[in-house]
Amino acid sequence: MPQPRALAPDLLALLACEFGADLLVDEAALCARSRDESGLVRQPAAVLLAKSEAQVARLVSLANANPTGHSFAVIPRGAGTGLAGGCLAPEMGVVLDLTAMNRILDIDTRSLTATVEPGVLTGDLRAAAKAKGLFYPPDPASLATSTIGGNAATNAGGPACVKYGTTRDYVLGLTAVLPTGEVVRAGANTRKGVVGYDLARLLVGCEGTLGVITGLTLKLLPHPGAAACVAAVFADLNAAMRAIIAIMTRGHLPSAMEFLDARCLKLVGDLLPFRVEGDASALVLVEADGDPEQVRREVEAIEAICRELGAANILPPAITGTKEGDEGREAVWKVRRSVSTRIHEACAVYIPEDIAVPIGRIADMVAALPEVEARHGITIFAFGHAGDGNIHLNLTAQDEAQRPQVEAAAVDCVRLALALGGTISGEHGIGLVKRGLLPLEIGPASLKLQRGLKALFDPNNVLNPGKIFPAEQE
Amino acid sequence: MPQPRALAPDLLALLACEFGADLLVDEAALCARSRDESGLVRQPAAVLLAKSEAQVARLVSLANANPTGHSFAVIPRGAGTGLAGGCLAPEMGVVLDLTAMNRILDIDTRSLTATVEPGVLTGDLRAAAKAKGLFYPPDPASLATSTIGGNAATNAGGPACVKYGTTRDYVLGLTAVLPTGEVVRAGANTRKGVVGYDLARLLVGCEGTLGVITGLTLKLLPHPGAAACVAAVFADLNAAMRAIIAIMTRGHLPSAMEFLDARCLKLVGDLLPFRVEGDASALVLVEADGDPEQVRREVEAIEAICRELGAANILPPAITGTKEGDEGREAVWKVRRSVSTRIHEACAVYIPEDIAVPIGRIADMVAALPEVEARHGITIFAFGHAGDGNIHLNLTAQDEAQRPQVEAAAVDCVRLALALGGTISGEHGIGLVKRGLLPLEIGPASLKLQRGLKALFDPNNVLNPGKIFPAEQE
Repeated sequence: MPQPRALAPDLLALLACEFGADLLVDEAALCARSRDESGLVRQPAAVLLAKSEAQVARLVSLANANPTGHSFAVIPRGAGTGLAGGCLAPEMGVVLDLTAMNRILDIDTRSLTATVEPGVLTGDLRAAAKAKGLFYPPDPASLATSTIGGNAATNAGGPACVKYGTTRDYVLGLTAVLPTGEVVRAGANTRKGVVGYDLARLLVGCEGTLGVITGLTLKLLPHPGAAACVAAVFADLNAAMRAIIAIMTRGHLPSAMEFLDARCLKLVGDLLPFRVEGDASALVLVEADGDPEQVRREVEAIEAICRELGAANILPPAITGTKEGDEGREAVWKVRRSVSTRIHEACAVYIPEDIAVPIGRIADMVAALPEVEARHGITIFAFGHAGDGNIHLNLTAQDEAQRPQVEAAAVDCVRLALALGGTISGEHGIGLVKRGLLPLEIGPASLKLQRGLKALFDPNNVLNPGKIFPAEQE
Repeated sequence: MPQPRALAPDLLALLACEFGADLLVDEAALCARSRDESGLVRQPAAVLLAKSEAQVARLVSLANANPTGHSFAVIPRGAGTGLAGGCLAPEMGVVLDLTAMNRILDIDTRSLTATVEPGVLTGDLRAAAKAKGLFYPPDPASLATSTIGGNAATNAGGPACVKYGTTRDYVLGLTAVLPTGEVVRAGANTRKGVVGYDLARLLVGCEGTLGVITGLTLKLLPHPGAAACVAAVFADLNAAMRAIIAIMTRGHLPSAMEFLDARCLKLVGDLLPFRVEGDASALVLVEADGDPEQVRREVEAIEAICRELGAANILPPAITGTKEGDEGREAVWKVRRSVSTRIHEACAVYIPEDIAVPIGRIADMVAALPEVEARHGITIFAFGHAGDGNIHLNLTAQDEAQRPQVEAAAVDCVRLALALGGTISGEHGIGLVKRGLLPLEIGPASLKLQRGLKALFDPNNVLNPGKIFPAEQE
């Protein structure tokens, strides 16, 4: 693929003339768009703080074929909460910041849909829907600060996936600016639609490499009346996983099923209202949502299953709707949410892997980690979404000099996940960070086809180049 | 695109040599694959009753570049239950019949997945999952006789879409033979995965034009303990739709919400256990599923909402689990299922349209039908999936001579649906039957891109050519 070159002065003048004050070139503006949560830093040459789809189309058109004769890259960006470097600019690229296109255009209570611009914060959308009795389920950890457009570009998921799926499952239709600058409507406004190829689902999860999403029609659900969670400590991870599976095979579909391994539990166990005993190997957190009475009955049944399968300690279910219940639930989730931060604080080197395996193989995956640790002399923390098999492996060391070992261990973990029928990334995506690993999962025929897709959509390789695919020479 | 030519005798000899007894050329075999449920008839030149992925890949490879120098088309086919002519052969094409690849390879109760060959009947899969306490939710009307591969190729949906989505939402990963004969694995075995472009979701719903699905990994859910349904008659369709919307905005997510308009009700009302009064304008059928006690409470709440919003007559909820409950539920569903048959029997000309509109516009759509009827002097029956906006419009006339008027009315209905923010097809797809209408919904930029996708996957246009896209000269 052709590689974009640096911005020439005449091009910068053209862009300034086109976009006026919406084109930002000051150091603070560039610096603010030079990072995401991957730890990488790439400073762009300029930023367009887009206010309209027309501006987006104009910028991309200019990138694709501009009168100055200089090609440049356009890198769409939401709030920069990604972990894969997907929104970072190659040298002298122009970041297309979509956070100012942040209007919720409609919450339709008759059709149970939302129509939004891409810069809307996911948390704001959820709140706006809830105010009308409706529910937007996807819940990436970043939901308070990430945008719905970024969620769609990365097909963001979260704990709710086990019951509700990921962002992809809520995008009914979208408008996108193609890398040629053309605007297309993909999908439909309806809950069903089978007309032509599914361009909407191809653009969702493409990490901004095939099109820039400028508008979304989203499916909403009735808002559940209540949620309640159970936290159970097990002496044995296998028993914990048996409980997870038993909950589902006995007819329950919880809205979250999270787990923490023994190391994580040691790190955050002090946040639990009971003393975690020495041989505790796993904390399981199961949440149910729905009608309040049903939720009460369901968490009791879940508690009983955990007890039957050997839970050493169970926190009584906390049901939302009372001050005590709300606080109790919040306290349990705080344990889960504190894990990443505490690991990050405790370790000089910290690489967050994001593999997923079939649910039934989680215990096998975790059981294989001590050997990886021993081989590389590093420490691995495992926690995440037991309900969908997505395990966040945090690979760590106490000394920056050990970074190569941590990186090597990360590749071992990826290979292990693949050997167990899993995938390299459940939520974070490929971006810059994992593109070298892509061929471990994607075979040559598929890789060739995917490169062909990129070339079909983006013949001049102007939209978010250098992401997803390994460099040709690798 | 190049058009495939007729099979030459040397080619037929080559295929017979390659595939032996699995290549069928007798009249009965060809005749049996010459139809689907669209009413169209297209006799193929030969049929490969494939027994393995290797045979599929070999046939497609030969079609793509065969030593005799004669190109030919390959048309994948499941059970032929489609309504759009999607599995019918162009002149002298070879039908690739996948019904003999019908093994359920695994129902994994630890990972809640099924691994199947494409020829498995959807009903058989549902039964095998249920026997292990698991649930495969998609429920196209044809589920007893259609294949899971056909369901995936057309992204089949049914009444359960309102709660559970369509086939697409259950395909975690798949294996496909590309039009070049290469075999690719797309998606993953896991419930989450964001690695590269979503080829799995692109192949699902492509109507067999981009690849032949040879294996599927499907997501299963816990099987609900019970189901129960409520049937309510309303004097006014608007009131019925208000009830549908109120049910959802008050926190219920039924597993089906069906409706019949006044004409349909007149045709099948005798199957209801109560007398339908003269001014009855709509029958609404709402089903809930889940934990038995919760289902009991939920259908009571739904019944109350229907009563509050003016239902004239309500059949008391029938809950599965007792002989009386099972029979009661079956009796109500029989009313719904009898509609198509009775319309078909009663009318000489019968065109089943399949538009979908946002849920809140169903009443507007139905209200606009009398004008279409008057304009063309025909009769329209409306029924279908109120929970997802997918309305089956059955356009009819008593005299074959009126077929042109019925066809013209069908186009008017499609235009109406699009004007209401809807789509041409919610479930049936485009195939041969609706390809002329595609440009009404898909704009030029998207159409160009979709033709580009077809050319990228299938440069020699050998796989199911002539489907989805209007002929170039149209």
